Amino acid sequence: MTTPATEDGCLLIIGGDEQRNCRERILARFVELSGGKERRFVLLTSASEEPEKMARPYQEALARLGASHCDTVHTASRAEANDPAMAQRIAHADGILITGGDQKRLMATIGGTALDQALHEALKRRCACLAGTSAGASAMAGHMLASGSADYAPEKGAATLGAGLGFVQHIVIDQHFSQRHRINRLLSLIAQNPYLYGLGIDEDTALVVERGVGIEVIGDGGVTFVDGRNMITNAADIGDGEPAELIGVQLHVLPAGSGYLLPGAAPSARLHRITREAPAPIHEFICNLTKRNPLT
Amino acid sequence: MTTPATEDGCLLIIGGDEQRNCRERILARFVELSGGKERRFVLLTSASEEPEKMARPYQEALARLGASHCDTVHTASRAEANDPAMAQRIAHADGILITGGDQKRLMATIGGTALDQALHEALKRRCACLAGTSAGASAMAGHMLASGSADYAPEKGAATLGAGLGFVQHIVIDQHFSQRHRINRLLSLIAQNPYLYGLGIDEDTALVVERGVGIEVIGDGGVTFVDGRNMITNAADIGDGEPAELIGVQLHVLPAGSGYLLPGAAPSARLHRITREAPAPIHEFICNLTKRNPLT
Repeated sequence: MTTPATEDGCLLIIGGDEQRNCRERILARFVELSGGKERRFVLLTSASEEPEKMARPYQEALARLGASHCDTVHTASRAEANDPAMAQRIAHADGILITGGDQKRLMATIGGTALDQALHEALKRRCACLAGTSAGASAMAGHMLASGSADYAPEKGAATLGAGLGFVQHIVIDQHFSQRHRINRLLSLIAQNPYLYGLGIDEDTALVVERGVGIEVIGDGGVTFVDGRNMITNAADIGDGEPAELIGVQLHVLPAGSGYLLPGAAPSARLHRITREAPAPIHEFICNLTKRNPLT
Repeated sequence: MTTPATEDGCLLIIGGDEQRNCRERILARFVELSGGKERRFVLLTSASEEPEKMARPYQEALARLGASHCDTVHTASRAEANDPAMAQRIAHADGILITGGDQKRLMATIGGTALDQALHEALKRRCACLAGTSAGASAMAGHMLASGSADYAPEKGAATLGAGLGFVQHIVIDQHFSQRHRINRLLSLIAQNPYLYGLGIDEDTALVVERGVGIEVIGDGGVTFVDGRNMITNAADIGDGEPAELIGVQLHVLPAGSGYLLPGAAPSARLHRITREAPAPIHEFICNLTKRNPLT
């Protein structure tokens, strides 16, 4: 059994399509953040109806990266997700990647099960790297963006929330963000839930989150933060499907290569070349992202 | 010769495609803002290479609305735009609509000519309603969004500015905004020009601007304000084509039906049902939009 790579686990929140332009760059970082290619990796495919098809490109990419200890875990039912042997396969992993599919399927199957608990324990006790891409990214939040669309305007009721895995709190995560033009979908949610921060991650792009330290954007695109805590909105007064008025939303766009440390945090080997402290407008957002959650 | 409809001219900034869902609603408002169907209307088609094709649907729509005094003015050269007789046709109009096409063509032909001056005089002296749609909308600003695109991220140099007509100052106007997903194009410009406010207008949507009074959004979509005056950005330090970091952009979305008065302004018949004063986050933006410019 290997020992933890560092003192604390980290998150890798991926916007989907992570092998397009930045060929394996994000997965190479996943291997590195997990402690290197000798570590134990698990692909968790429970979000998908086609687990083998979903897993294969990741298995091949990890093999090319020299990560030979790669297990694939799929659960088609809550009974399977409560199987202690299944949960142990997660709890003993150093790097876990939750693949895409449908985040509602994922949570309906694993939410609140022994496997869910094992994910938290791997991050907390084993200091694993927990990665999620596409549906797997959205599910990492406590309030999970479940479904919906809003093409041309923020609309009341256009998107729905579900209960996610809770690795980040007070943040709702959207993926394929710029490519699928999802800013209005995210704003629709923020209009009705202004205490949630919105985080949109582009395809082939990921956010590295080191607990208690800071964040880094890697890959081909960028990440978008939407902060509606101080906005003025009529969302409470309009009907479902109506466009909402939003005044005073804070918008932040961080391209790949950008990243920030929490005030007072020392630069970390996990966050390449990130040396600057978060400026005031995104300070609280990054505090929230990097907060260490207690095991529940 | 008719007398001015009201004490001051107004602007109607249209996001293009204004006869789709809100069939003639926006053009009906144009007629109303110009003083009614008995007034003199001019279609200015200088932005287009196909002026007759561009003018015809507007001529037909205005005829259906009972506006029978409709002249079409086209200039293919600066010499024509400096023809005093041509300029007089503009100066004597109560409602002027600058049609779509290419805003660079429009400004190359009429910018700084007698016709340009006549537009300002019609607004200022005759209290006309000046409408612009699509290219005609962008050209209404002093700093005109001339060209460019930025699909998935705000990028340095992705969009270019030109010298526009200057009916609004310190504001850059984009159109077909949500339908063509132009927020990154607008943010690209704001990143390099943070003293400009960004105004994005959706298709089939218009912003009524009454000088010294307030604004109203009409039509099918909404308008987006982007305010980067207090943002933190690396735009000055990166190369052309590189994605910019933007932290602390203020974003406001106003759907149709929304609108605000300047503090202390009395409700106006031109701005239907608009009775609320602009809240603090958009106060300065609306002050800028509604400012009466001197004749230059």
